[in-house]
Amino acid sequence: MQDIESVTLQAELWSVAEELADAARASILPHFRQGHLKADNKEQGGFDPVTIADKASEQAMRDILNKRRPQDAILGEEFGKSAGTSGLTWVLDPIDGTRGFISGTPTWGVLISLNDADGPRLGIIDQPYIGERFCGGFGRSEVIGPHGTANMQVRGTTDLQDAVLFSTFPEVGSQDERRAFEAVSEQVKLTRFGCDCYAYGLLAAGHIDLVIEASLNAYDIAAPIAVIQAAGGIVTDWKGDPAHDGGRTLAAATPELHAKALKILQHCLS
Amino acid sequence: MQDIESVTLQAELWSVAEELADAARASILPHFRQGHLKADNKEQGGFDPVTIADKASEQAMRDILNKRRPQDAILGEEFGKSAGTSGLTWVLDPIDGTRGFISGTPTWGVLISLNDADGPRLGIIDQPYIGERFCGGFGRSEVIGPHGTANMQVRGTTDLQDAVLFSTFPEVGSQDERRAFEAVSEQVKLTRFGCDCYAYGLLAAGHIDLVIEASLNAYDIAAPIAVIQAAGGIVTDWKGDPAHDGGRTLAAATPELHAKALKILQHCLS
Repeated sequence: MQDIESVTLQAELWSVAEELADAARASILPHFRQGHLKADNKEQGGFDPVTIADKASEQAMRDILNKRRPQDAILGEEFGKSAGTSGLTWVLDPIDGTRGFISGTPTWGVLISLNDADGPRLGIIDQPYIGERFCGGFGRSEVIGPHGTANMQVRGTTDLQDAVLFSTFPEVGSQDERRAFEAVSEQVKLTRFGCDCYAYGLLAAGHIDLVIEASLNAYDIAAPIAVIQAAGGIVTDWKGDPAHDGGRTLAAATPELHAKALKILQHCLS
Repeated sequence: MQDIESVTLQAELWSVAEELADAARASILPHFRQGHLKADNKEQGGFDPVTIADKASEQAMRDILNKRRPQDAILGEEFGKSAGTSGLTWVLDPIDGTRGFISGTPTWGVLISLNDADGPRLGIIDQPYIGERFCGGFGRSEVIGPHGTANMQVRGTTDLQDAVLFSTFPEVGSQDERRAFEAVSEQVKLTRFGCDCYAYGLLAAGHIDLVIEASLNAYDIAAPIAVIQAAGGIVTDWKGDPAHDGGRTLAAATPELHAKALKILQHCLS
């Protein structure tokens, strides 16, 4: 087994990850905002532009991994699990935020993570339309966007009353989950909705302070965990345990803020 | 008074409008995502990055108008009304979506409209970070973005069950306004929040079908009206009357869809 703490290997893994993100961009953009998309009829088995883009994006990434990292496992939203021998797993969500995608918003994204036995070690949140990439892991924490490259660091907010909170939908999840979310929301300065995975990038880059969601899959949260941890933030589930299997997630800029939000979520669900 | 139906004048007015949007971009971008913005403390009289950017952007636009169109009136969010003699008024919102701006999202915008006695005739919704500009009026309807230029046309959705609905906040407005919005929301395929003025651009470009908001100012809606009308859509208040003075607004892709949403809103508020 290769030593993941090797700088040479880490550079190779970043090179692979960026090639994956480039390939995903090239696969998806021809389908974004094309035609007058009437529906996401994925559940009925139809083929719509978002499904075509989703599958093309994941296939393009798998083709690269098969060539460059055949020893690694893959967990992808579209094509499931492929076994590996290295102890490393690439976790791929080719389009996170399909409802945003079909609405033409620029805040869906491609999520790429490399996990070892301890969880996500490297992550990319890529927004192809803007041409913006949030990267974190192995000592790197930066965003590359239309106006250049910047280092990322979470901001130092420690009180709920100063915090900006994001979630994708006001429903959040079940009725109980919604009530718990709203109990936190009532304490913060500002709550905003609608950003899908882009909100995690904003948290890592120091623009917002909290993201709370429910009913996530592992591939929805692995890359955000790596990106936020590399920028100094913290991500757990609503019990304070590791969140990389998905479910209910709480991402926060600081441990103090995390503890305050966690206490409210736990109180509401107890 | 100049004849606003003159093609020469219309070309000049588009040239002025695009120069305004370019100047606004240059004024705002140095302040976007700069520092760790802690608050929008505008209401307490403080000076924060969004207020500085707001004022700089409107001042830059006014400087251009004072040189190129001194005969026109101006209505701006930051500096109010300036009289003119031409019968034309430039309506300027230097940053629409300040809460999005301070959160780092890419869906706030610069709104520029040219109104005559009949209402908005030319409009621009500009998103400086993405580098995207939705333009409509005087026979022009196009979006210029990071991946090129495309003509805009609303899509043909006529039934609520096929429609994608946007609003900025789930609260929408008062309790009554929220209930009326939710009565429409319950009928549509998908409801999304959080896009500020960008949602009107998405409607004009044929990606979504309805935008419903309340408590708008004239400068929040003038440019979207021009952009949406140029793309074949319809914008009114919740009574079906002209919306260019702000208040409660209903933007729809087609007259049929507009009528169906309007009926529900009116029923809820009667």
